[in-house]
Amino acid sequence: MPPITNMHKKILLAHGSGGSLSHRLIDEVFLKNFNNPFLSEKDDGAIVEIGGTKLAFTTDSYVVKPIFFPGGDIGKLSVFGTVNDLAVMGAEPLYISCGLIIEEGLDRRVLEEIALSMAQAAQIARVLLVTGDTKVVEKGGADRIYINTSGVGIVKKDLSVKGIEAGDRIIISGSVGEHEVSVLLAREEFPFRSQVTSDLAPLNQLASDILVVDGVKFMRDPTRGGLATTLNEIAEGIGLGIVVYEDKIGVSDGVAAVCELLGFDPLYLANEGKMVVVAKRDCTGEVLKRMKDNPLGKESEIIGEVAAELNGRVCLRTRIGGTRILDMLAGEQLPRIC
Amino acid sequence: MPPITNMHKKILLAHGSGGSLSHRLIDEVFLKNFNNPFLSEKDDGAIVEIGGTKLAFTTDSYVVKPIFFPGGDIGKLSVFGTVNDLAVMGAEPLYISCGLIIEEGLDRRVLEEIALSMAQAAQIARVLLVTGDTKVVEKGGADRIYINTSGVGIVKKDLSVKGIEAGDRIIISGSVGEHEVSVLLAREEFPFRSQVTSDLAPLNQLASDILVVDGVKFMRDPTRGGLATTLNEIAEGIGLGIVVYEDKIGVSDGVAAVCELLGFDPLYLANEGKMVVVAKRDCTGEVLKRMKDNPLGKESEIIGEVAAELNGRVCLRTRIGGTRILDMLAGEQLPRIC
Repeated sequence: MPPITNMHKKILLAHGSGGSLSHRLIDEVFLKNFNNPFLSEKDDGAIVEIGGTKLAFTTDSYVVKPIFFPGGDIGKLSVFGTVNDLAVMGAEPLYISCGLIIEEGLDRRVLEEIALSMAQAAQIARVLLVTGDTKVVEKGGADRIYINTSGVGIVKKDLSVKGIEAGDRIIISGSVGEHEVSVLLAREEFPFRSQVTSDLAPLNQLASDILVVDGVKFMRDPTRGGLATTLNEIAEGIGLGIVVYEDKIGVSDGVAAVCELLGFDPLYLANEGKMVVVAKRDCTGEVLKRMKDNPLGKESEIIGEVAAELNGRVCLRTRIGGTRILDMLAGEQLPRIC
Repeated sequence: MPPITNMHKKILLAHGSGGSLSHRLIDEVFLKNFNNPFLSEKDDGAIVEIGGTKLAFTTDSYVVKPIFFPGGDIGKLSVFGTVNDLAVMGAEPLYISCGLIIEEGLDRRVLEEIALSMAQAAQIARVLLVTGDTKVVEKGGADRIYINTSGVGIVKKDLSVKGIEAGDRIIISGSVGEHEVSVLLAREEFPFRSQVTSDLAPLNQLASDILVVDGVKFMRDPTRGGLATTLNEIAEGIGLGIVVYEDKIGVSDGVAAVCELLGFDPLYLANEGKMVVVAKRDCTGEVLKRMKDNPLGKESEIIGEVAAELNGRVCLRTRIGGTRILDMLAGEQLPRIC
């Protein structure tokens, strides 16, 4: 591909999609300048050592629109989102920070509702919000409120794509697409209603339930860019292929209906309470049992496996027996769902 | 004072000023909901323990306008700002995160320039940028680019306002107001030019130079709200008073001229490369010497002392022998200078 410089002299919404344009922007602008072994891992966070302790450290800005949606709001999302990033790194989330950018004129009650929601979410996920910062910008300088949360936690187990090998199984903790569809419909830009609720949930307990199983090699929460993008990141990271089976991937009727109407592929829709796990074949049974024992994982399914061929690509075996390459999300399906 | 709820049902720019409205908003909306011992310290960051190691953890969002100004840019500011917050907590800054919110249409070269500036700043301050996140919002959803940086570091020495007592000396590492004036003039809203350059600089070496002196009790960088607000925070925290001498506080000719023209008080203007130190009286000489030995502290001055009377208030002895109470910044002088 030609360098992005020649293609896009301006930053596009798609550069924030989490898909291939985001990856290239990060590679070309940031990894070039910040060449250190932590960043080049391109994980959702970094693992650093401080005083002999392995610490996971991650950051995320939340710009979701609208800020309230069925199943959550930007406050809860900002807490659980960062908790989940730490959890899938094999860490126990402990402390989070909160940086607010508020648009002048925001209703104080809205801010209070968001703060309360963050506090409840922190309590549920058993993390402490320990430090914060508030900035207020002029009208038109933000869209109501943006929240950055960063988080630190202790690494319980070293997880890395590097240990993944052909034959390993791919498990997902439930159906896909609820978060993005619920946010989309909350925008009221569409002439129909639906009952889809975001799957937003803290995954740290679920992650910790399976971390004790030796064969668990890697976890990732398929947020922006969806399951397809997460699988591509894994496949690319290991240089092996991944085969997944369409009929094993859960899509609720509500999500399926909206996708049908609007032409979206549920495999590219963001989730906020789902986990993809790569586990050694011979321990898949135990991992699956443990996941199903947790309410957030009761719909867990083995959806595929790592293949020796396919060299970094992801292949979908369709319901009707066909085969289709699942690329990384190229542009954006929908902006600002995280 | 009546609860802020009755006064302001909408969030105002002044709520982001770092002054008394900011403090009340944080008290009433956040501390109420997040009642934990870390947050209630109301420091610029939190000190947490992980695996037996004391860790400083801080966050700041940077929304400075314009994003380039004499002496720096939003990228450099976002790195040094967080480095400084960690440094004045008595910590050695180690790792930082970077969360970008970019307005669609931003020129890619601008982003590249900012990334390069952040990389250079990180190198100068000897911290590693280890993790990041990029979001892109629609036109009008941000003002070009906002950057959140969070940082972690190892605590080298426990500093707290609690150890401060009457007789302790107040030292500042140099003149005040350059940062805010340089940003203000870079907006080109004023019919005059000036040569004022931001004092933006990393303070970690200066902080570490004096931390070894036993009698150093507290450090703080007087950013939003300026020196007057920082002194008020200290006085309030200890329930003692502070007396400062106007003729000891350095104000450059350029800053003085702009303040004269526009009616600003330099004591309330933001700095980004200055440090206020509270030290035991009998070690002031050594602290001052060490500060002056560092290029960033060569203009250091003892500007005042902690007083047994005055109960939480700050008193300025003016050049002409008068006395004036220095309150915390009430509203905002200028928005978005950090």
